[in-house]
Amino acid sequence: MRQSNLFTKTIRESPKDEKSINAKLLIRAGFFDKLMAGVYSYLPLGFLVFSKIKNIIREEMNRVSGQEVFLPTLHPRKIWETTDRWHDKEGIMFKLKSRSGKDYGLGWTHEEVITPLVKKFVQSYKDLPVSVYQIQNKFRDELRAKSGLLRGVEFVMKDMYSFHASEEDLNKYYEKVKGAYFRIFQRCGIGKKTFLALALGGAFSKYSHEFQTITPYGEDTIYLCQKCKLGLNKEIIEDQKYKCPQCKNKELEIKKTIEVGNIFDLKTRFSKAFDFTFKDKDGKDKPIMMGCYGLGLGRLLGTIVEVHNDERGIIWPKEVAPFLIHLIALENEIKVSKASEELYRKLQGTEVLYDDREDKTAGEKFADSDLIGIPIRVVVSKKTLGKNSVEVKKRGEKKEQLVEIANLNKFLKSFI
Amino acid sequence: MRQSNLFTKTIRESPKDEKSINAKLLIRAGFFDKLMAGVYSYLPLGFLVFSKIKNIIREEMNRVSGQEVFLPTLHPRKIWETTDRWHDKEGIMFKLKSRSGKDYGLGWTHEEVITPLVKKFVQSYKDLPVSVYQIQNKFRDELRAKSGLLRGVEFVMKDMYSFHASEEDLNKYYEKVKGAYFRIFQRCGIGKKTFLALALGGAFSKYSHEFQTITPYGEDTIYLCQKCKLGLNKEIIEDQKYKCPQCKNKELEIKKTIEVGNIFDLKTRFSKAFDFTFKDKDGKDKPIMMGCYGLGLGRLLGTIVEVHNDERGIIWPKEVAPFLIHLIALENEIKVSKASEELYRKLQGTEVLYDDREDKTAGEKFADSDLIGIPIRVVVSKKTLGKNSVEVKKRGEKKEQLVEIANLNKFLKSFI
Repeated sequence: MRQSNLFTKTIRESPKDEKSINAKLLIRAGFFDKLMAGVYSYLPLGFLVFSKIKNIIREEMNRVSGQEVFLPTLHPRKIWETTDRWHDKEGIMFKLKSRSGKDYGLGWTHEEVITPLVKKFVQSYKDLPVSVYQIQNKFRDELRAKSGLLRGVEFVMKDMYSFHASEEDLNKYYEKVKGAYFRIFQRCGIGKKTFLALALGGAFSKYSHEFQTITPYGEDTIYLCQKCKLGLNKEIIEDQKYKCPQCKNKELEIKKTIEVGNIFDLKTRFSKAFDFTFKDKDGKDKPIMMGCYGLGLGRLLGTIVEVHNDERGIIWPKEVAPFLIHLIALENEIKVSKASEELYRKLQGTEVLYDDREDKTAGEKFADSDLIGIPIRVVVSKKTLGKNSVEVKKRGEKKEQLVEIANLNKFLKSFI
Repeated sequence: MRQSNLFTKTIRESPKDEKSINAKLLIRAGFFDKLMAGVYSYLPLGFLVFSKIKNIIREEMNRVSGQEVFLPTLHPRKIWETTDRWHDKEGIMFKLKSRSGKDYGLGWTHEEVITPLVKKFVQSYKDLPVSVYQIQNKFRDELRAKSGLLRGVEFVMKDMYSFHASEEDLNKYYEKVKGAYFRIFQRCGIGKKTFLALALGGAFSKYSHEFQTITPYGEDTIYLCQKCKLGLNKEIIEDQKYKCPQCKNKELEIKKTIEVGNIFDLKTRFSKAFDFTFKDKDGKDKPIMMGCYGLGLGRLLGTIVEVHNDERGIIWPKEVAPFLIHLIALENEIKVSKASEELYRKLQGTEVLYDDREDKTAGEKFADSDLIGIPIRVVVSKKTLGKNSVEVKKRGEKKEQLVEIANLNKFLKSFI
């Protein structure tokens, strides 16, 4: 894409109403715009990253046999009364009325929709297991939405729900999904910093599992056992007597983290509420066992930025970068722009953002490039053209190298 | 995909609370589930069709230089007050309050979000034109949501907004988008039945343009000039004195139609409200000219079904079909299932739904296949295997043909 066509521009000053690194950088670089606290617009660059994350999540959910659906966000009161969650203490559900007086809630989770839906199709043990997911908006009436994309009032979430004939089968699947989550974080470039952690389970289970990513400014705190690579959310550390529940290790490291995913063993909490049973092999009606697997896409995106940045901007891991290559025509001269145009044509098929802007200085172009954070920068200038070359550099590294234009395509293949 | 893995099943009886053909067929065939009036869940088959439609729309919007974004659905009161639309007469906007007392509306359109957003980045004629689109949920507090997917309370819409330095440039772009819309309808299999029609323009313009698709049970009525292929919505026919405004033809055909798209020449209605001007070549500040281009994805999907069906079910046009081939193992016998499994493997790379269910009769499988409406049916049975063949049939046609298994891949290539 030509940068001159991109309708967004970078912003020199940090937005005054944002404290978090992710929001500051993502807004300055033109990935997001803030509509109000906790509510952001995805701009073209942000949408590209979002689409890549979405595809990674989709691939990994499909690998564990998830079937993709798309559920409404406007929910009738009745289904939330069925599970006794209409009158939620915390008040995180937005409620509204239709003109004709009907009560609706805006979905902050979807057990109330998916459970009766799957019940319509599942009667026998032969129909099980089933795993269903969606990528859809969620709403939470947050009192303090001050962490940029990490804590949204409106946000996009992948939520998967699984249905099983036995607790054993649920447990087996639950482990499989853990693997899928680690693959997602790996591919998104935060695998090494992300750990499984035990946390409070809410109403249905004593504990749940969180995926916690270590960052300097994380909102959460975990106690990490370096032997087991298992974390304990600080909310349960007393209960666990400051010991790793697996190896009893007492030397736990305290880390600031961001929760990037959360999975729950729901058991029969929702199937019982909706009277959802199945006919087992022995002819008896038994309640369905359920699991639930959440992953906020904006939160994941924000976490990637919190992990991968420096004083000059974002450093995108390549699998989620908006483009792979940032091609920069450094000077506004015919020779440079002609060579750049030709390179841009040659690089079609690779994801290239081409800085063809004529009203920017070399300094502005470099600063923008660092701020936007595309993994590889290719600079065309009078100087490099004198050697029939371009200057190639990885965003995270300091060293540039001269590469002959004739060899560039080949060079990039191994460099990316 | 194996049909035995699909968690949905077809439903024998038509849902009693649905009157429209699209809802009856889509629910019976397992594409959608109704949560409440005007609010539907996309099930796996429905999601596949939805994704294909989304991709077609995206490709065509990108072809007219649309830049994809993703805007919030939760809007602060202030932006709607700026355009004087917070107190809407019709009452189609859902309104709600946060815990802390803030007023929000749920977006039924996005001029109020996109106009101030683009204003942040556009200052000069050099920044223009800009065209931005999204595919996002919309909400309308409809009193009568009785047409299945055609009139939703919550629904997915593609809405594009364009920004121009002059009315001339807006008009040129407006014509370009008309072309993009016709390509979309063509690819979705309703091109021949879809006509441009003049309609009321709302607050900003005397007329707007609709795309109207002829169907037997359409909610709208147009007067169609067969010479110009231009329709007049009946709401303006008196105003136009029952004549085609282009050729003055008085022999207009009355047709029942569904409105599948609507485009508006907004001019300065919203740029003025947000004080959005640009610096023109002559150094003067001028107001931005805007266009707006809507397309409901669920409505388009429902319209395709209204156009393409028969007494046995849906007949998907191939570019939007959930799968291209429905492979059916007719009898539950080892020889048949072995040959079918092998064929299924060979057909990987093509989109195949493989009916491998062991608990269904041949009659049930045929009925399901007709109801689901995949373009090509390939049947493996004892009889066909006796001739080393399979039986191939298009969903819309009566004639089957025997094709030798060895030639099947080649045959399908030209047949699809």
